[in-house]
Amino acid sequence: MTDQKKVIFNDVTLRDGMHAISHQYSKEQIAELTRVLDDTGVDIIEATHGDGLGGSSIQYGFSKETEKDIITTAVENVKNAKVGVLLLPGIGTIDHLKRAREWGASVVRVATHCTEADVSEQHIKAAGDLGMDTVGFLMMSHRAEPEQLLEEAKKMESYGASTIYVVDSAGALTMDDTRRRISLFKENLSTEIGFHGHNNLSLGVANSIAALEEGAGRIDTSLAGMGAGAGNTATEELVAVMNKMDIPHSIDLYKAMDAAENIMKPMMRRPVQIDRLSLTLGYTGVYSSFLLFAERAGEEYGVDPRDILTKIAEMGAVGGQEDWIIGVAQDLAKEKKQDSVTV
Amino acid sequence: MTDQKKVIFNDVTLRDGMHAISHQYSKEQIAELTRVLDDTGVDIIEATHGDGLGGSSIQYGFSKETEKDIITTAVENVKNAKVGVLLLPGIGTIDHLKRAREWGASVVRVATHCTEADVSEQHIKAAGDLGMDTVGFLMMSHRAEPEQLLEEAKKMESYGASTIYVVDSAGALTMDDTRRRISLFKENLSTEIGFHGHNNLSLGVANSIAALEEGAGRIDTSLAGMGAGAGNTATEELVAVMNKMDIPHSIDLYKAMDAAENIMKPMMRRPVQIDRLSLTLGYTGVYSSFLLFAERAGEEYGVDPRDILTKIAEMGAVGGQEDWIIGVAQDLAKEKKQDSVTV
Repeated sequence: MTDQKKVIFNDVTLRDGMHAISHQYSKEQIAELTRVLDDTGVDIIEATHGDGLGGSSIQYGFSKETEKDIITTAVENVKNAKVGVLLLPGIGTIDHLKRAREWGASVVRVATHCTEADVSEQHIKAAGDLGMDTVGFLMMSHRAEPEQLLEEAKKMESYGASTIYVVDSAGALTMDDTRRRISLFKENLSTEIGFHGHNNLSLGVANSIAALEEGAGRIDTSLAGMGAGAGNTATEELVAVMNKMDIPHSIDLYKAMDAAENIMKPMMRRPVQIDRLSLTLGYTGVYSSFLLFAERAGEEYGVDPRDILTKIAEMGAVGGQEDWIIGVAQDLAKEKKQDSVTV
Repeated sequence: MTDQKKVIFNDVTLRDGMHAISHQYSKEQIAELTRVLDDTGVDIIEATHGDGLGGSSIQYGFSKETEKDIITTAVENVKNAKVGVLLLPGIGTIDHLKRAREWGASVVRVATHCTEADVSEQHIKAAGDLGMDTVGFLMMSHRAEPEQLLEEAKKMESYGASTIYVVDSAGALTMDDTRRRISLFKENLSTEIGFHGHNNLSLGVANSIAALEEGAGRIDTSLAGMGAGAGNTATEELVAVMNKMDIPHSIDLYKAMDAAENIMKPMMRRPVQIDRLSLTLGYTGVYSSFLLFAERAGEEYGVDPRDILTKIAEMGAVGGQEDWIIGVAQDLAKEKKQDSVTV
């Protein structure tokens, strides 16, 4: 690596990780995770409902703690890291953001589907007015060709985002796919560039390295990969590889390994790993928030969750359209043939 | 990929996977796994004690079934795949190989430490005389610089090996490390080239893809990564990525996914995954056969297995020197300080 600037780690254990625990982290768990994350040296700790500000709802699942408690608990337990929040326009509002700012969050990632950056304009501008580190977050980036994704990124840049992310929400990007997107951003944007990976195709670490090699300066990780689907890029794994490659950062590898093993894994309700279903998510490119819904619907209607997800992908479903799943499951149940694969 | 030749899959579920089950596969399990592997479309099924022919011993652990039963059970249950064996000169002999050939094995991988190809001469020549598909297998390839590794590979080529492998025994190679080794082989050898990966740094799939892109034509995988340490490259994960990249092969992805989930995982004694210890193996570059020994010694002497492995790596230990571990553990126990990290 010729560029010796330290890579910024945006930890998502307390945000994407919310998905993996059905948003049920307790205040005590949030406090403990914040302290150990801060101690490992991560730069930003994102702490929000898995679907962002305002996400705690009947539609996206209620979090155990209130939005205020999640954010203030993180803020009260950091020494060095900044606290961030996620905001999906349509779920969260500028009012939510103002409150988060008052509670001490200083970083916001304004997230839209990769072809809908337009909806982020007011939110990105408001975040700038609030003096926050403002990040544009292009979810499901595999669903847009690199040139199209760049056009969306340019919109976020024009609204005032100082960092823009390629977000591999479904863990569906190959290394080439990642390189093409990040390198195009690097050539054409003046913002910092970030990469958010998931491990569905077992490429979380590899895609993050590819992104860094192409010029990304921020990377999302979580302890032991705690996150939706097959999980995020695991902090301790990426750091081990970065150390071997002499890519600079601020993380203590052994502390991250210990935190993953001793603190994070015992909190997991189920192992965050690649299994048949999460691999199917990455392979078909369906948003990982569909996973639990497909499992439940599969069980309820006696159909293979893989068939549901494949169908959903063919229909071009995006995040927020999880309600399609029931209809698909019902249709599949009707069509069900004797030779269908059982899960 | 411009080269549209089908990639050959050498499955190691029944050989490297032996390590993960302490060599205790029963005949029934070997038969079942052979049938499902054959049905997924793998080209070669390697079935041997984890440490190869002659490995069933007090030193390397006794296998549940005899060498003859392991091999003949595989041979009797294949329809399309070839059956292979592993031979480490010094553990196995030419007599072992002749018997394996009589029992129906038609592929042999003659394996040496990456700097000791010389010891494979007689075995490779004997394998050629037996009319076997003869493969040179350079273990712990991260311990030799690419140029040095090439010199060793050239020796194996001169003995008559028709395929030569870069073997990432400890899962310690980065993608660049892999590319440099495979590309140098491609430029300078007239043999086929293979790659055997482990997932300790979460790069099993990524390194395999890098190897294919540099011209490797054979890849080792196992169902659900069943293998030593953090496991091998998982068949179903690599195939999913290869499908997305249009790299040709003979594997049925869905069958591989189902076999991994329904047949392989229920047989596992412990989940084959990246944890603190296996990540340490990849990071320090210690041979994965050290893992269980370090765990046991760590428990017995009350020291951190990571400290044992780090020390062993510094000492330059290679496969077969697992007996060093006890001495190291004893030394560390004496030195043990209050601030040592507990596992």
